[in-house]
Amino acid sequence: METNDKIINGKIHADNLLKKIYPLSVDYIKKYSKKPTLAVVLIGNDPASEVYVKNKIITANKNNINSLKITFSNEVYENILLDKIIELNNNPDVHGILVQLPLPKHISEKLVIQTINPEKDVDGFHPTNYGNLFMGSPSFIPCTPLGCFYMLKKEIPDLTGKNAVIIGRSNIVGKPMASLLLSSNCTVTIAHSKTINLIETCKKADILIAAIGKPEMINEDYIKKNAIIIDVGINRIEQNDLSIKNNKSKLVGDVNYNKVFDIVDKITPVPGGVGPMTIACLMHNTLKAAFLNKKDPFINILESM
Amino acid sequence: METNDKIINGKIHADNLLKKIYPLSVDYIKKYSKKPTLAVVLIGNDPASEVYVKNKIITANKNNINSLKITFSNEVYENILLDKIIELNNNPDVHGILVQLPLPKHISEKLVIQTINPEKDVDGFHPTNYGNLFMGSPSFIPCTPLGCFYMLKKEIPDLTGKNAVIIGRSNIVGKPMASLLLSSNCTVTIAHSKTINLIETCKKADILIAAIGKPEMINEDYIKKNAIIIDVGINRIEQNDLSIKNNKSKLVGDVNYNKVFDIVDKITPVPGGVGPMTIACLMHNTLKAAFLNKKDPFINILESM
Repeated sequence: METNDKIINGKIHADNLLKKIYPLSVDYIKKYSKKPTLAVVLIGNDPASEVYVKNKIITANKNNINSLKITFSNEVYENILLDKIIELNNNPDVHGILVQLPLPKHISEKLVIQTINPEKDVDGFHPTNYGNLFMGSPSFIPCTPLGCFYMLKKEIPDLTGKNAVIIGRSNIVGKPMASLLLSSNCTVTIAHSKTINLIETCKKADILIAAIGKPEMINEDYIKKNAIIIDVGINRIEQNDLSIKNNKSKLVGDVNYNKVFDIVDKITPVPGGVGPMTIACLMHNTLKAAFLNKKDPFINILESM
Repeated sequence: METNDKIINGKIHADNLLKKIYPLSVDYIKKYSKKPTLAVVLIGNDPASEVYVKNKIITANKNNINSLKITFSNEVYENILLDKIIELNNNPDVHGILVQLPLPKHISEKLVIQTINPEKDVDGFHPTNYGNLFMGSPSFIPCTPLGCFYMLKKEIPDLTGKNAVIIGRSNIVGKPMASLLLSSNCTVTIAHSKTINLIETCKKADILIAAIGKPEMINEDYIKKNAIIIDVGINRIEQNDLSIKNNKSKLVGDVNYNKVFDIVDKITPVPGGVGPMTIACLMHNTLKAAFLNKKDPFINILESM
């Protein structure tokens, strides 16, 4: 196998997905004389959140999707934020609503998410959307697991009977990932910080999803020969190599890419793996919301696979 | 260990739970001058459904809970059924609504369930309740997995780090059971009909939940020494022992009880295991709905453990 065949290139998968989305947004505009519109709500000035929001808006604009950026200071009252969400819910020109997380501590994340109309919930975090996903009904699927799943299905169209191990049980990644893999007939194990014998558990995995948030924790000891690895971690670590100028830190995943590379069948790199897919899936979900808003059928990426 | 210590007696656990519920219903009646009320909707004349509904009503009446039985013929129009559900949603004297499944084929189970007000959904089948369970938020939890989980927690108060394997991925049992075990820090594997090497997977289980619907499929080959077995199966099979008069069939679980008995640490029998707990949990959920209806806090059985 060529070395490059081993790399699941998120950038290429994301570009392919966006190429399918672009003509859909053109169709939408022709049909309804307005652009699909995504409202992005940013509270405070967390630098990471600002970068994420900026990238989402740039990608939206490139893909013929209108964006509406709404900012609040870190001290905004919860009810002011909730009123804004209700206003966006009621605005027929807004199709998708995304509130960038995390929120300041005085604001209830749960209440904010529950206030978003599930039909505009492009992040897929509303309980109704989680419930529908869990039950196998149509829903907005959170962008990161949707992107991971899309790449997996592109690489291995039939997942039936595969042993999938997910490390991490978050609502944002681990649990929805489990639902998606289960619906594709994988045998699914969810491991986490309280798992005993994590190495032994991971070593059973034909497919390993790492969503832990610990830089390069998963090394060669955890990996079965010819496993497929999706690395969801995005961790910034200090760069020790002083020969690299202006580059004090670098991004790494939860998997030690170099140490496992020779063992695996396929792996997503960090950066350039899950990251680009997450944002492409946000565009997908926004288009879906725009078509749903017009009661116009939308074939989502999973159904069309 | 005494033989009897091995048996997880669902009847005793259910009686203990009902003993806690009874005084709560007495309190409710004193405080609000009316009984907690459960509406049970039965469509058609499936004999099994009729028995289930009858048992639910008998148990409700014994436990100071009012029951309202609503029956429709097998040919009822979907919209008539939906109108009745809406009427029950709007009736302040009805606290819990249960529609006995399965439904005739011309009626959409999904639509019926989605029509029930989630705050009266004592079966816990509404997407909002599934979503909240999945996210770890308060919700109505489906009665069978709730009953299984209650018994498990009573037998093993700390489940942290246990390997739990669930066979069966239904919305009614397998998936909610996975959520509950995950929230108790188990490492959770969900296996099903497409699982390869089911024996090997089951043999890793400290806790095995069998919810397959195949009589006595799980024998000693599947069981790790000292595992704890919860057998959710209720299968009626022909009785071969002709010496037993008037007893042409008998109930068995998904686990071959006699063959695994010597290996296991604890096991639920069939009948007398999960069955009695399911109905006790329905009473629990009805009380919960009645208190919630009055915005009166209700400490559910899991929180109080």
